[in-house]
Amino acid sequence: MLSFEVEARSGRARAGRLVTPHGPVETPAFMPVGTAGAVKAVTRQDLEAVGAQILLANTYHLMLRPGDALVARLGGLHGFTGWKGPFLTDSGGYQVFSLADLRELTEEGVRFRSHVDGSPHLLTPERSVEVQMNLGADLAMAFDECPPYPAPREAVEEATARTTRWAERSRAAHRRTDQWLFGIVQGGVHLDLRERSARELLGMGFPGHAIGGLSVGEPKGDRDRVLDHLDPILPTAKPRYLMGVGTPEDLVEGVARGVDLFDCVLPTRNGRNGQLFTSRGRVSIRNARYREDPLPPDPDCPCYTCRTASRAYLRHLHLAGEITAATLLTIHNLFFYLDTLRRMRQSILLGRFEEFRQEFGRSLAASAPEAEGA
Amino acid sequence: MLSFEVEARSGRARAGRLVTPHGPVETPAFMPVGTAGAVKAVTRQDLEAVGAQILLANTYHLMLRPGDALVARLGGLHGFTGWKGPFLTDSGGYQVFSLADLRELTEEGVRFRSHVDGSPHLLTPERSVEVQMNLGADLAMAFDECPPYPAPREAVEEATARTTRWAERSRAAHRRTDQWLFGIVQGGVHLDLRERSARELLGMGFPGHAIGGLSVGEPKGDRDRVLDHLDPILPTAKPRYLMGVGTPEDLVEGVARGVDLFDCVLPTRNGRNGQLFTSRGRVSIRNARYREDPLPPDPDCPCYTCRTASRAYLRHLHLAGEITAATLLTIHNLFFYLDTLRRMRQSILLGRFEEFRQEFGRSLAASAPEAEGA
Repeated sequence: MLSFEVEARSGRARAGRLVTPHGPVETPAFMPVGTAGAVKAVTRQDLEAVGAQILLANTYHLMLRPGDALVARLGGLHGFTGWKGPFLTDSGGYQVFSLADLRELTEEGVRFRSHVDGSPHLLTPERSVEVQMNLGADLAMAFDECPPYPAPREAVEEATARTTRWAERSRAAHRRTDQWLFGIVQGGVHLDLRERSARELLGMGFPGHAIGGLSVGEPKGDRDRVLDHLDPILPTAKPRYLMGVGTPEDLVEGVARGVDLFDCVLPTRNGRNGQLFTSRGRVSIRNARYREDPLPPDPDCPCYTCRTASRAYLRHLHLAGEITAATLLTIHNLFFYLDTLRRMRQSILLGRFEEFRQEFGRSLAASAPEAEGA
Repeated sequence: MLSFEVEARSGRARAGRLVTPHGPVETPAFMPVGTAGAVKAVTRQDLEAVGAQILLANTYHLMLRPGDALVARLGGLHGFTGWKGPFLTDSGGYQVFSLADLRELTEEGVRFRSHVDGSPHLLTPERSVEVQMNLGADLAMAFDECPPYPAPREAVEEATARTTRWAERSRAAHRRTDQWLFGIVQGGVHLDLRERSARELLGMGFPGHAIGGLSVGEPKGDRDRVLDHLDPILPTAKPRYLMGVGTPEDLVEGVARGVDLFDCVLPTRNGRNGQLFTSRGRVSIRNARYREDPLPPDPDCPCYTCRTASRAYLRHLHLAGEITAATLLTIHNLFFYLDTLRRMRQSILLGRFEEFRQEFGRSLAASAPEAEGA
């Protein structure tokens, strides 16, 4: 019921097609983050308008509220949220370490208290997979342990080994044929641990692979080295998902290293905080220079926000605390992200990805640190 | 450049057509409140989709932030916000008494400090009209004094007399021919003061009349009596605007007494607070009874929210504090308000308003206090 095909390459960059029970995803693709079953500050029709093909939802948040059993009774994420396209759920591993209280980690899993109501929970590989089967996303993730950065090598080694054991338990617990379960590569910034993690996962025959534990504070050079090292190890015929990354520049560098799927809260979170990503760099809309600026946020952008709102108006709405500002800035940022991925894909299909990458970098460099406008 | 025509009557209810430089308004009409130049939690395309024909913006808020001179330089409210249809601005009189600090009322006007930054301001009839000319709405209001309820009769009498004097000064200061300036009838719940206020305004030849100082805490019976008393006094050929009213039932009773225009924050504010107005009464979406309810908020409603979201999903988003909940509930409430007005207008054109009114009341009574669903 699911398939993935690499349609074209340009250097190491790949253009592919992921087919799911809820429709196709053209890769490389960016997945807007719908933590609690909605992408913050926008509606489904906004997501359709910006061209989102697949959404991410967070296992940790949804198992706590409204509860995965309730979501299952209402038809899974698709029935519950009404989003007709594909969904991906994460494993809950990262959130349980970053958000929950009173964590206790054992080989069995993680005991914690809900950040919503303090109730006690135990998240294991089996429970994570059960939650994800209840949520019914098209793509699910094996339960993993994501070590912090920095951490002693021994701690990373232990977390990586446990992630392998948990991947095996996750795989054994997974029973939906209409859902793909990805293994997650851990190993921090240590290339030998990354390689070991990847090779152990390969033996289990996962249909796709996530690369976790990056974008947690490590130097960008380390991240690039990990991706460079994993590229020839991971099977070329299976999709690769770089978790939680990143800025538009990070996405370009990820695609350059063979990544197919991305998610990140930056376009939505920064939108709510008044920061826009544009073809000329970042725009902090509260900056006084935009007080009377009649130009749209990005004069080259055809999104709804740029077609209908000036920087002066958006600045005013943001400073007045209007919810509409969060919506409009989020719409633009998501459009910019998704459009950047679409343009990358097009350049790969044309065999011109390297030209795109260089032009993208030049455009940003020409106007940093704050876009100048027309 | 502006005109108003009563097209049909049914009892005392009127169906009319207000033509403005920014398009027509079919009356009776409800104006969504866009305090700071945006209707909270929705975008222009949402407003277009629910069928809004005219928006209200608040003079007090916009003169303080971003400032009326800035709005004027960016093309007035229409250029600044991008809303192409008609706008109405209020006089700032009500807000300066309810929101500002350190008010000092004199015959000249009201001295106050901004609730935004504490800066000192003087709002006079001349300044209110200047601000409104800068904002450039199609309909503007004379500066008025809105006494609180309850207040001693002498205080109401004094405020009413001052409102007349300020109306004269407002009229003298008004110079835009593409903008209608309405006089505001005050007088509290005292029918003789209301009549005196109206007759004094009539002598000044305003093109339309607002009825202020209601929906401030007075008994509903008093409000109905004021409207009944004013109906034969106000000229039938000119539009009548009942300020700040009210619930859907209030709107029906206002139309029954000859009112053409309404505004109120209830559909937007209550939407953000999780309360829906439906054909079967009000729905508090946080109610536990909706926890697993797969029905839309109002099964009879064709709005975007009711076509795409269940009560269970909306309840979850609201409880999770998701901005998207505010957007979806606001869209439904605005649709319900605007649709109620459209249906009233249709019933008037068919000479069947009284049937509509009775059916509307029966439908609500059958399901109070909380809609039961299908």
